[in-house]
Amino acid sequence: MKDVTVVGAGPIGLAIAWRCAARGMAVEVVDDGLPGAWHASAGMLGPVAEAYFGEAQLTALLVESAKRWPGFAAELGAEEIGYRAEGTLVVALTGDDLAEAERLRAYQAGLGLPITPLRPTELRDREQLLSPRVRGGAHAPDDHQVNPRRLVPALRKAATAAGVAIVRESGPAGVTVIAAGTGSAALTGLPVRPVKGQILRLRAPGHQPPGFSHVIRGYADGRHVYLVPRLDGEVVVGATVEERADAHVTAGGVVELLRAAADLVPEIYEYELAEAIAGHRPGTPDNAPLIGPHSDGVIVATGHYRHGIVLTPLTADLVADLVETGQLDPILGPFAPGRFA
Amino acid sequence: MKDVTVVGAGPIGLAIAWRCAARGMAVEVVDDGLPGAWHASAGMLGPVAEAYFGEAQLTALLVESAKRWPGFAAELGAEEIGYRAEGTLVVALTGDDLAEAERLRAYQAGLGLPITPLRPTELRDREQLLSPRVRGGAHAPDDHQVNPRRLVPALRKAATAAGVAIVRESGPAGVTVIAAGTGSAALTGLPVRPVKGQILRLRAPGHQPPGFSHVIRGYADGRHVYLVPRLDGEVVVGATVEERADAHVTAGGVVELLRAAADLVPEIYEYELAEAIAGHRPGTPDNAPLIGPHSDGVIVATGHYRHGIVLTPLTADLVADLVETGQLDPILGPFAPGRFA
Repeated sequence: MKDVTVVGAGPIGLAIAWRCAARGMAVEVVDDGLPGAWHASAGMLGPVAEAYFGEAQLTALLVESAKRWPGFAAELGAEEIGYRAEGTLVVALTGDDLAEAERLRAYQAGLGLPITPLRPTELRDREQLLSPRVRGGAHAPDDHQVNPRRLVPALRKAATAAGVAIVRESGPAGVTVIAAGTGSAALTGLPVRPVKGQILRLRAPGHQPPGFSHVIRGYADGRHVYLVPRLDGEVVVGATVEERADAHVTAGGVVELLRAAADLVPEIYEYELAEAIAGHRPGTPDNAPLIGPHSDGVIVATGHYRHGIVLTPLTADLVADLVETGQLDPILGPFAPGRFA
Repeated sequence: MKDVTVVGAGPIGLAIAWRCAARGMAVEVVDDGLPGAWHASAGMLGPVAEAYFGEAQLTALLVESAKRWPGFAAELGAEEIGYRAEGTLVVALTGDDLAEAERLRAYQAGLGLPITPLRPTELRDREQLLSPRVRGGAHAPDDHQVNPRRLVPALRKAATAAGVAIVRESGPAGVTVIAAGTGSAALTGLPVRPVKGQILRLRAPGHQPPGFSHVIRGYADGRHVYLVPRLDGEVVVGATVEERADAHVTAGGVVELLRAAADLVPEIYEYELAEAIAGHRPGTPDNAPLIGPHSDGVIVATGHYRHGIVLTPLTADLVADLVETGQLDPILGPFAPGRFA
């Protein structure tokens, strides 16, 4: 019998399994073979620029996990997983957009997070491709990125090397960890719902690196968009947020994303549209994760919503602690799976 | 030895082979296995709404071929090939768009072609989904449509049933017909160039028939777009016209097509974006086709540019006549392959 069965082979499940195996436990991961939310994720590691009004506890969790990312990336091979630390630029197109971005930036700065306002010329000093229409923004130097489609294979490799068995059907185990994203609802009865996101992959001409290197967190005429540039020429543009369970890419979703992105970085109009897909974030009633004991012998680690990638290292470490010691780190207190019961 | 080898297994080549075989000739078609321009074509049969200033001879050819389409479709099975005869609505968004559309309509009407102006309410009586912003348009009752991706398999079936051999490598033949689209340039030295077109396939929710049945030939803030509704729920939206040989779908191409289409038929924003591809029309210096004798034992039928589908029946009939009798129909006089030499 295994010590631990992890249900779910996304980044969260694989990282938990890897951490448990590294502590000497016998671990298996149940993989249904279907790509999860990570497959449609841009991989922004943005605890600062994503910090939102009224979510101070979640922000503390994001910040703590982001701190662990450099070491986590180094263990897996930073280059192999597309980890980039150029930072994030917040970019606002209109005066109204800038007012919205500034309200949020003041809140983030008030929490002591590293984010500094930038004037239009200062933005364009950092990224020449930004539209001359841009009215202002900010710099979040600690908000980085990783490529989830490289991260997951690297985690599989690391977990397997540590002795984890990746299987289709689970056997009996001492502890079961449910890390199945939107699939966790059916397994646990917990309130995890799919929140549809449409996301695009563009390619710079000739597969050259794109002409910008920061992650761009944009506000464009009231539309929110991000652009994540990869060294291989890919630019990920995302994402819609829709309370829908279908996986259709819609004409309207694509147009709104591309218009907003091109309003900020006009050059992307010339880029190839390489992929358009929809995924489903695991949302919860407060859109914060569910991490902790669920029932006898069952732990859950799900509901990471838009923050699964940034929260992967911390979730893995603390769930491994929980499995090993039975002790729950106090930072997880607000994220108890049973809080909506 | 075959009587006829046709190089090219698109609609033109297959239809020529079919017609020749039906007259008792031994025919083979050389198919390189690559989809041609037809694969990215919407299949508009629009001799009237596509009639353009200074192209009266080409328009006469289009009209003559369009007359043959009902019989041609009936031979292949009108339903099987997605032939629809609901007609075409010309739709103009702004006052400037209407002025442009009206100038062309007056020219078309002056040639005696069936096209009548419609006021906005008259347009919306025919298609309720049209945007309330639409300023006017016209009705071209004889401009129909077919589905090229159904047409080509039907032509292969008909040709094969008539005894045509479809092969990868050609053997010797009495007459060779070059109907290889953009590939004809390399085979003949004739001035045929690729003109890139990006085209989208949308799907109505639930794969229901779209909420409109006419082909829409649109003018939207100076952008030209068409929407072709199929009974299976597909709506084809096209097309860019670019003097480029690459086959990339670009962010800008997709945005411009979808914005223009949604400005006229807002509902399509909710449609699934099922496919975005680029194809290459075989263009010539005057963008009219090259049909007729090329050299000893070689006939060409290429350069159909944007009109390959509508010109298929006439091209097939007249090239079969030419092969059989050596006589060229006078309507083809202006389209001699050597006219640019």
